[in-house]
Amino acid sequence: MSRPKEKTRDPEKRRHPGVRTKIYVRDDMIGSGKVDLLRLIDQTGSISGAAAAMGCGYRRAWFLLDTLQRCFRQPLTVTQRGGPGGTHLTELGKEFLARHDAHEAEISTVSAPYLAWLESQQS
Amino acid sequence: MSRPKEKTRDPEKRRHPGVRTKIYVRDDMIGSGKVDLLRLIDQTGSISGAAAAMGCGYRRAWFLLDTLQRCFRQPLTVTQRGGPGGTHLTELGKEFLARHDAHEAEISTVSAPYLAWLESQQS
Repeated sequence: MSRPKEKTRDPEKRRHPGVRTKIYVRDDMIGSGKVDLLRLIDQTGSISGAAAAMGCGYRRAWFLLDTLQRCFRQPLTVTQRGGPGGTHLTELGKEFLARHDAHEAEISTVSAPYLAWLESQQS
Repeated sequence: MSRPKEKTRDPEKRRHPGVRTKIYVRDDMIGSGKVDLLRLIDQTGSISGAAAAMGCGYRRAWFLLDTLQRCFRQPLTVTQRGGPGGTHLTELGKEFLARHDAHEAEISTVSAPYLAWLESQQS
Protein backbone atom coordinates (compact mmCIF):
# COMPACT_ATOMS: atom_id res chain seq x y z
CA MET A 1 0.00 0.00 0.00
CA SER A 2 1.36 3.38 -0.96
CA ARG A 3 2.33 5.86 1.69
CA PRO A 4 3.04 9.30 0.19
CA LYS A 5 4.98 10.42 3.27
CA GLU A 6 7.39 7.53 2.99
CA LYS A 7 7.80 8.16 -0.69
CA THR A 8 8.81 11.78 -0.31
CA ARG A 9 11.17 10.93 2.54
CA ASP A 10 13.00 8.49 0.34
CA PRO A 11 15.94 10.34 -1.28
CA GLU A 12 15.75 8.08 -4.34
CA LYS A 13 12.25 9.33 -5.04
CA ARG A 14 13.22 12.96 -4.57
CA ARG A 15 15.26 13.54 -7.68
CA HIS A 16 12.49 15.74 -9.04
CA PRO A 17 10.99 18.74 -7.23
CA GLY A 18 7.53 18.10 -5.86
CA VAL A 19 4.64 19.81 -4.16
CA ARG A 20 2.86 18.91 -0.94
CA THR A 21 -0.41 20.46 0.14
CA LYS A 22 -2.17 20.63 3.46
CA ILE A 23 -5.72 21.68 3.95
CA TYR A 24 -6.60 23.46 7.14
CA VAL A 25 -10.07 23.56 8.57
CA ARG A 26 -10.20 25.80 11.61
CA ASP A 27 -7.47 24.50 13.92
CA ASP A 28 -7.09 21.13 12.22
CA MET A 29 -4.92 20.13 9.31
CA ILE A 30 -5.92 17.56 6.71
CA GLY A 31 -2.76 16.06 5.29
CA SER A 32 -1.86 12.84 3.52
CA GLY A 33 -1.59 10.89 6.81
CA LYS A 34 -5.26 11.28 7.72
CA VAL A 35 -6.44 10.77 4.16
CA ASP A 36 -4.33 7.62 3.81
CA LEU A 37 -5.78 6.33 7.07
CA LEU A 38 -9.32 6.79 5.81
CA ARG A 39 -8.40 5.04 2.56
CA LEU A 40 -6.92 2.13 4.50
CA ILE A 41 -10.04 1.84 6.64
CA ASP A 42 -11.99 1.59 3.38
CA GLN A 43 -9.61 -1.08 2.11
CA THR A 44 -9.22 -3.15 5.29
CA GLY A 45 -12.67 -2.65 6.82
CA SER A 46 -11.37 -1.76 10.27
CA ILE A 47 -9.39 0.84 12.20
CA SER A 48 -7.06 -1.85 13.55
CA GLY A 49 -6.45 -3.15 10.03
CA ALA A 50 -5.70 0.38 8.81
CA ALA A 51 -3.38 0.97 11.79
CA ALA A 52 -1.47 -2.22 11.02
CA ALA A 53 -1.16 -1.25 7.35
CA MET A 54 0.12 2.21 8.33
CA GLY A 55 2.53 0.78 10.86
CA CYS A 56 1.07 2.75 13.78
CA GLY A 57 -0.88 1.75 16.86
CA TYR A 58 -4.66 1.54 17.13
CA ARG A 59 -4.79 4.54 19.48
CA ARG A 60 -2.82 6.71 17.08
CA ALA A 61 -5.09 5.70 14.18
CA TRP A 62 -8.20 6.34 16.26
CA PHE A 63 -6.87 9.77 17.26
CA LEU A 64 -6.13 10.71 13.63
CA LEU A 65 -9.59 9.62 12.52
CA ASP A 66 -11.18 11.54 15.40
CA THR A 67 -9.26 14.67 14.40
CA LEU A 68 -10.34 14.32 10.78
CA GLN A 69 -13.95 13.72 11.82
CA ARG A 70 -13.96 17.01 13.74
CA CYS A 71 -13.84 18.81 10.36
CA PHE A 72 -17.21 17.31 9.39
CA ARG A 73 -20.73 17.62 10.72
CA GLN A 74 -21.80 14.17 9.47
CA PRO A 75 -19.88 10.92 10.11
CA LEU A 76 -17.15 9.76 7.72
CA THR A 77 -17.23 6.21 9.09
CA VAL A 78 -19.65 3.82 10.75
CA THR A 79 -18.49 1.21 13.24
CA GLN A 80 -20.63 -1.91 13.43
CA ARG A 81 -20.80 -3.59 16.80
CA GLY A 82 -21.54 -7.27 17.18
CA GLY A 83 -21.41 -9.81 14.37
CA PRO A 84 -18.37 -9.45 12.13
CA GLY A 85 -18.04 -5.81 13.27
CA GLY A 86 -15.60 -3.54 11.55
CA THR A 87 -15.55 0.09 10.44
CA HIS A 88 -16.79 1.24 7.06
CA LEU A 89 -16.88 4.51 5.21
CA THR A 90 -20.15 6.37 4.83
CA GLU A 91 -21.13 7.93 1.50
CA LEU A 92 -19.69 11.18 2.86
CA GLY A 93 -16.42 9.42 3.72
CA LYS A 94 -16.20 8.08 0.18
CA GLU A 95 -17.10 11.44 -1.33
CA PHE A 96 -14.42 13.13 0.77
CA LEU A 97 -11.77 10.65 -0.45
CA ALA A 98 -12.82 11.17 -4.06
CA ARG A 99 -12.84 14.97 -3.77
CA HIS A 100 -9.51 15.00 -1.96
CA ASP A 101 -7.87 12.80 -4.59
CA ALA A 102 -9.32 14.91 -7.42
CA HIS A 103 -7.94 18.04 -5.75
CA GLU A 104 -4.49 16.47 -5.36
CA ALA A 105 -4.53 15.56 -9.05
CA GLU A 106 -5.44 19.14 -10.00
CA ILE A 107 -2.64 20.50 -7.80
CA SER A 108 -0.24 18.14 -9.48
CA THR A 109 -1.31 19.26 -12.96
CA VAL A 110 -1.22 22.97 -12.17
CA SER A 111 2.19 22.66 -10.45
CA ALA A 112 3.98 20.82 -13.25
CA PRO A 113 5.34 23.87 -15.14
CA TYR A 114 6.67 25.54 -11.96
CA LEU A 115 8.28 22.31 -10.74
CA ALA A 116 9.89 21.80 -14.16
CA TRP A 117 11.31 25.33 -14.01
CA LEU A 118 12.67 24.70 -10.49
CA GLU A 119 14.29 21.51 -11.70
CA SER A 120 15.97 23.38 -14.57
CA GLN A 121 17.47 25.80 -12.00
CA GLN A 122 18.89 23.15 -9.69
CA SER A 123 22.55 23.05 -8.85
CA MET B 1 4.06 43.65 5.50
CA SER B 2 2.01 40.52 5.19
CA ARG B 3 3.13 37.33 6.84
CA PRO B 4 1.06 34.36 5.66
CA LYS B 5 2.19 32.17 8.57
CA GLU B 6 0.92 34.65 11.12
CA LYS B 7 -2.31 35.01 9.25
CA THR B 8 -3.11 31.31 9.26
CA ARG B 9 -2.21 31.01 12.94
CA ASP B 10 -4.72 33.68 13.81
CA PRO B 11 -8.01 31.93 14.70
CA GLU B 12 -10.01 34.94 13.49
CA LYS B 13 -8.61 34.45 10.01
CA ARG B 14 -9.37 30.73 10.01
CA ARG B 15 -13.10 30.77 9.67
CA HIS B 16 -12.78 29.47 6.13
CA PRO B 17 -10.89 26.33 5.13
CA GLY B 18 -7.61 27.04 3.36
CA VAL B 19 -4.76 25.36 1.58
CA ARG B 20 -1.03 25.58 2.27
CA THR B 21 1.58 24.42 -0.18
CA LYS B 22 5.18 23.42 0.27
CA ILE B 23 7.58 22.76 -2.52
CA TYR B 24 10.34 20.29 -1.95
CA VAL B 25 13.57 20.28 -3.90
CA ARG B 26 15.71 17.30 -2.93
CA ASP B 27 16.03 17.51 0.86
CA ASP B 28 14.96 21.12 1.15
CA MET B 29 11.50 22.59 1.52
CA ILE B 30 10.45 25.89 0.02
CA GLY B 31 7.62 27.28 2.12
CA SER B 32 6.17 30.70 2.75
CA GLY B 33 8.83 31.57 5.33
CA LYS B 34 11.72 31.48 2.87
CA VAL B 35 9.73 33.14 0.11
CA ASP B 36 8.62 35.92 2.45
CA LEU B 37 12.23 36.42 3.51
CA LEU B 38 13.35 36.86 -0.09
CA ARG B 39 10.50 39.30 -0.70
CA LEU B 40 11.51 41.30 2.38
CA ILE B 41 15.14 41.41 1.23
CA ASP B 42 13.80 42.85 -2.04
CA GLN B 43 11.74 45.40 -0.15
CA THR B 44 14.27 46.40 2.53
CA GLY B 45 17.49 46.02 0.55
CA SER B 46 19.27 43.99 3.22
CA ILE B 47 19.21 40.71 5.11
CA SER B 48 19.22 42.53 8.45
CA GLY B 49 16.27 44.67 7.32
CA ALA B 50 14.39 41.57 6.24
CA ALA B 51 15.20 39.83 9.53
CA ALA B 52 13.89 42.82 11.50
CA ALA B 53 10.69 42.88 9.42
CA MET B 54 10.20 39.12 10.00
CA GLY B 55 10.92 39.44 13.70
CA CYS B 56 13.79 36.96 13.62
CA GLY B 57 17.54 37.31 14.10
CA TYR B 58 20.09 37.96 11.36
CA ARG B 59 21.59 34.48 11.71
CA ARG B 60 18.19 32.81 11.29
CA ALA B 61 17.46 34.91 8.19
CA TRP B 62 20.88 34.16 6.74
CA PHE B 63 20.37 30.43 7.36
CA LEU B 64 16.94 30.46 5.65
CA LEU B 65 18.35 32.30 2.65
CA ASP B 66 21.28 29.91 2.46
CA THR B 67 18.89 26.93 2.51
CA LEU B 68 16.78 28.46 -0.25
CA GLN B 69 19.87 29.24 -2.31
CA ARG B 70 20.91 25.57 -2.20
CA CYS B 71 17.95 24.81 -4.48
CA PHE B 72 19.45 27.00 -7.24
CA ARG B 73 22.58 26.82 -9.34
CA GLN B 74 22.75 30.60 -9.88
CA PRO B 75 22.55 33.23 -7.12
CA LEU B 76 19.18 34.60 -5.97
CA THR B 77 20.80 37.61 -4.27
CA VAL B 78 23.91 39.76 -4.54
CA THR B 79 25.50 41.35 -1.50
CA GLN B 80 27.39 44.57 -2.18
CA ARG B 81 30.35 45.24 0.04
CA GLY B 82 31.60 48.74 0.75
CA GLY B 83 29.68 51.92 -0.02
CA PRO B 84 26.04 51.77 1.01
CA GLY B 85 26.23 47.95 0.85
CA GLY B 86 23.07 45.92 1.13
CA THR B 87 21.69 42.78 -0.47
CA HIS B 88 19.66 42.84 -3.65
CA LEU B 89 17.79 40.27 -5.68
CA THR B 90 19.23 39.08 -8.98
CA GLU B 91 17.00 38.69 -12.02
CA LEU B 92 16.73 35.01 -11.08
CA GLY B 93 15.65 35.96 -7.54
CA LYS B 94 12.94 38.20 -8.96
CA GLU B 95 11.84 35.57 -11.45
CA PHE B 96 11.60 32.99 -8.67
CA LEU B 97 9.39 35.30 -6.58
CA ALA B 98 7.14 35.99 -9.56
CA ARG B 99 6.84 32.32 -10.50
CA HIS B 100 6.22 31.29 -6.90
CA ASP B 101 3.48 33.89 -6.47
CA ALA B 102 1.86 32.90 -9.76
CA HIS B 103 1.88 29.25 -8.65
CA GLU B 104 0.31 30.15 -5.30
CA ALA B 105 -2.42 32.06 -7.13
CA GLU B 106 -3.11 29.06 -9.38
CA ILE B 107 -3.29 26.75 -6.35
CA SER B 108 -5.73 29.13 -4.73
CA THR B 109 -7.96 29.20 -7.83
CA VAL B 110 -7.92 25.44 -8.37
CA SER B 111 -8.60 24.77 -4.67
CA ALA B 112 -11.61 27.06 -4.30
CA PRO B 113 -14.36 24.50 -5.15
CA TYR B 114 -12.91 21.83 -2.82
CA LEU B 115 -12.49 24.33 0.02
CA ALA B 116 -16.05 25.56 -0.46
CA TRP B 117 -17.31 21.96 -0.28
CA LEU B 118 -15.29 21.36 2.92
CA GLU B 119 -16.76 24.50 4.42
CA SER B 120 -20.29 23.31 3.60
CA GLN B 121 -19.56 20.07 5.51
CA GLN B 122 -18.25 21.72 8.67
CA SER B 123 -19.82 21.07 12.02
